[in-house]
Amino acid sequence: MTQDAGALGALFEVLSASEADRVTALYAPLADAVRDLLDATVRTEVDDDTVAQARAAIEAVTQSLRQRTRPVGVSYRVDGRPLPLGNAVVGACNPIAPPLVVHHDGGGRCWADFVLGSAYEGPPKLVHGGVSALVLDHMLGEAASEGLSKARFTGTITVKYLRGTPLGPLRSEAWIDRREGRKVFARGFISDDAGITVESEGVFIEPSWVREGGNGQ
Amino acid sequence: MTQDAGALGALFEVLSASEADRVTALYAPLADAVRDLLDATVRTEVDDDTVAQARAAIEAVTQSLRQRTRPVGVSYRVDGRPLPLGNAVVGACNPIAPPLVVHHDGGGRCWADFVLGSAYEGPPKLVHGGVSALVLDHMLGEAASEGLSKARFTGTITVKYLRGTPLGPLRSEAWIDRREGRKVFARGFISDDAGITVESEGVFIEPSWVREGGNGQ
Repeated sequence: MTQDAGALGALFEVLSASEADRVTALYAPLADAVRDLLDATVRTEVDDDTVAQARAAIEAVTQSLRQRTRPVGVSYRVDGRPLPLGNAVVGACNPIAPPLVVHHDGGGRCWADFVLGSAYEGPPKLVHGGVSALVLDHMLGEAASEGLSKARFTGTITVKYLRGTPLGPLRSEAWIDRREGRKVFARGFISDDAGITVESEGVFIEPSWVREGGNGQ
Repeated sequence: MTQDAGALGALFEVLSASEADRVTALYAPLADAVRDLLDATVRTEVDDDTVAQARAAIEAVTQSLRQRTRPVGVSYRVDGRPLPLGNAVVGACNPIAPPLVVHHDGGGRCWADFVLGSAYEGPPKLVHGGVSALVLDHMLGEAASEGLSKARFTGTITVKYLRGTPLGPLRSEAWIDRREGRKVFARGFISDDAGITVESEGVFIEPSWVREGGNGQ
């Protein structure tokens, strides 16, 4: 079943909880396998023949996966909330996503422990500064929208780099700092074992149709 | 030949121009094939058997590519400049990178035309806000460092979202706004056919060893 989301021109496919579990259990391990392939691809130094064989095998898999495809702009919803399987940061079925598993403590506070490998590199051995911004934009958005359950649009985010963030195990936390009318101010950070490496703050806007009692989400 | 980069604890492998061309020509098409696989993976709806076969094939390729691997923290340099083949935004050999091909017009002005597909999605049909921040962090850094040729560390970046950025063909431009002592202020934007969707400004810091005439890069 699909629903037109109106303003965004996007379609939602509504899944039951058990159907959502089935879809995740089927496609998340496939995305995991592609994540390993990503890491291997960035760092490989194998010879020409091995590369040629790898390309041929990958192209065949791509073709097989494209036999049946979700159209662009269709995404899943479960129990009235988005199931962001393809999201670039938290999507279990998106190999680009680390993926972050975001835990919510209530009241807009959330955290995630995650690992960033070679595919997220900027300077040698360090996380690309933009990847830190990507993670923090998402985490502040999770805090401001209370786990994507409320419609909030990002207004502005500021990211302050205290020192280089090493590739490897990291943590991010985010929380709601304060509210002013339709604006929600969120803050957060990324840290390694030695402390905070990057800080961020952001302003998120509640759309007017939420205030007016609409349900456009 | 490898060199110790000192402060970062990273190693550089120095390549001749022809060796750099050979490495890029060999591994960039492999990364392209994995990019197509990424896109197919995010959107596939094939059945259980096809997924199982795809996983097995992918795992075999991953194993073959890991027979010979560049150690973590080793990156290439050509003619004294970084060759960021594995960079998360511009790395031709990193499947996570779109990749952006950044053109420099001189004086710190640069631009890139690029396409973001389903793997970069946040809200349905829209680029993840954090991906826009990732792109802008990189573009402002390219402007501030004049094509990664000068050492500049990101201090702070601010990203302002004017409206949703649609998946598809996009453009980004960045330039140096002004300098104050060791600080370089850069600005930039992302645009679609209808105009600017996201704006950014950033402060980049010249390390003290550059001023002191060192060559720690």
